[in-house]
Amino acid sequence: MLAGLQQVVDPAELTAVVNVGDDTVLHGLHISPDLDTCTYTLAGAINPETGWGLVGESWNAMAALERYGGLTWFRLGDKDLATHLYRTHRLREGAALSTITAEITGGWDLGLRMIPVTDDPLSTVVTLAEGGTVSFQDYFVRLQHGVPITGVSFAGAEAARPAPGVIEAITEATTVVIAPSNPIVSIGPLLAVGGVRDAIAACRDRTVAVSPIIGGAALKGPADRMLRELGHDVSVVGVARLYAELAAVLVIDEIDAALADDVAAAGIRPVVAPTIMSTPERAAALGRTVLECLS
Amino acid sequence: MLAGLQQVVDPAELTAVVNVGDDTVLHGLHISPDLDTCTYTLAGAINPETGWGLVGESWNAMAALERYGGLTWFRLGDKDLATHLYRTHRLREGAALSTITAEITGGWDLGLRMIPVTDDPLSTVVTLAEGGTVSFQDYFVRLQHGVPITGVSFAGAEAARPAPGVIEAITEATTVVIAPSNPIVSIGPLLAVGGVRDAIAACRDRTVAVSPIIGGAALKGPADRMLRELGHDVSVVGVARLYAELAAVLVIDEIDAALADDVAAAGIRPVVAPTIMSTPERAAALGRTVLECLS
Repeated sequence: MLAGLQQVVDPAELTAVVNVGDDTVLHGLHISPDLDTCTYTLAGAINPETGWGLVGESWNAMAALERYGGLTWFRLGDKDLATHLYRTHRLREGAALSTITAEITGGWDLGLRMIPVTDDPLSTVVTLAEGGTVSFQDYFVRLQHGVPITGVSFAGAEAARPAPGVIEAITEATTVVIAPSNPIVSIGPLLAVGGVRDAIAACRDRTVAVSPIIGGAALKGPADRMLRELGHDVSVVGVARLYAELAAVLVIDEIDAALADDVAAAGIRPVVAPTIMSTPERAAALGRTVLECLS
Repeated sequence: MLAGLQQVVDPAELTAVVNVGDDTVLHGLHISPDLDTCTYTLAGAINPETGWGLVGESWNAMAALERYGGLTWFRLGDKDLATHLYRTHRLREGAALSTITAEITGGWDLGLRMIPVTDDPLSTVVTLAEGGTVSFQDYFVRLQHGVPITGVSFAGAEAARPAPGVIEAITEATTVVIAPSNPIVSIGPLLAVGGVRDAIAACRDRTVAVSPIIGGAALKGPADRMLRELGHDVSVVGVARLYAELAAVLVIDEIDAALADDVAAAGIRPVVAPTIMSTPERAAALGRTVLECLS
């Protein structure tokens, strides 16, 4: 979505507020998967086959770690490791994650501004149906999101303050876009940080959401199963109910055109458009749709 | 020295007590240069050109770190990084450094036992002639040991307890060998840990030191300059004075044969032998000399 928007507006006008509930510490390194995936994607350096990590990556550190029976379920490529080494070093120097993120995106010459939703600890916790809780990465990577869940919470959210610039980016934006990410574990943590949900709700008439559910399923990831397991309708109508208080418009895919009236009944204006961003051109087209649908 | 001894005694009979005063934390990773250099050397995996790091190493993480202007003066190869990732992970799990060291040496199938002198914090601090103090790695790597010093101290040494097995290894040994390492910053921290110096002194008649000074110079590293700057005689006689209370014998190189009487006058029995371990055979021969010179 960001890559699409970047093509149709001056990147200097674009601010991405990014989830850090997935952040984890492994081997003592602070890893911010969502920030890095956004950065690498916008830099054109993402591994297109996996959707995470760097293209042309080498895996010598992970391979060597197997000698010790080390922790290798979370794959960290050699070049990707540099990002975590840098972030960890700067955090230990006392720099804020938002400052470090600006340095990292600057290293990739990204034209837009990227801000972690908070500089404070925020941790997505998943409650498993079989009992007990695990961190998001345990659920998502180690367990390959293959186990049923009964709850998701965001540890630290109540105390977490929005990072500098987050609230201003929302209140001063011409358009606020809620990207077609997982509503529970990608958008959910953003909204859980104090003041963010209210800031978006206060500019609801300038906010557009894009449905991550297309034809009753998520294009990738566990969003559909998570919604179902947490009692939501796995459809654009279910998404409409989640975002009705926050957004004036919900962009839904053409395949869901028949559900437009039900979306409207849920309290949010539907806009039907192609939403599968299979090429940069389609992403740019969706970017244009999102920016124009409020006018 | 260890590689030589390993050839002439059953490795199962060999315990190496290794300096950790050089240990440092970089990028949040716990790095133990002396433990790793010993491990990689004994595993036949050391880079023979540098004397540190792994042979056949790749440098993709360090190269990628330059994008961010990251900290790259301390070179960490991709495969080498795995050792630091593993150590840091296990330390964060609460494992002792000595336990982790056994795991790492086990991963390389080393036959001998390697023990860090202490599991507690111990940090070599170098006082510069120009004023101020720096960590050992700052002095050794970042400043390339190119600046004059006026002092060396070992932060934490008074509180540090010998790691499990260290004192027993000394008191139960047939022979205690003080390797031809830098007396100030490699052997010094070992002796500074509570009880180690006394344990060696108590079995002085079973202890052999090998002089790291040959013909008035160190084969490598800054030992000669450090000794001079700290007011010691840069000769086998200077080394003899440092070790006279601890060892019954000082093995000195043939080139220093003329100084044997002065060594004896300093209170330690000289044994003259070839000490330059330029080949595995020469290292084995020195190992044999060291083990036989007490009998």
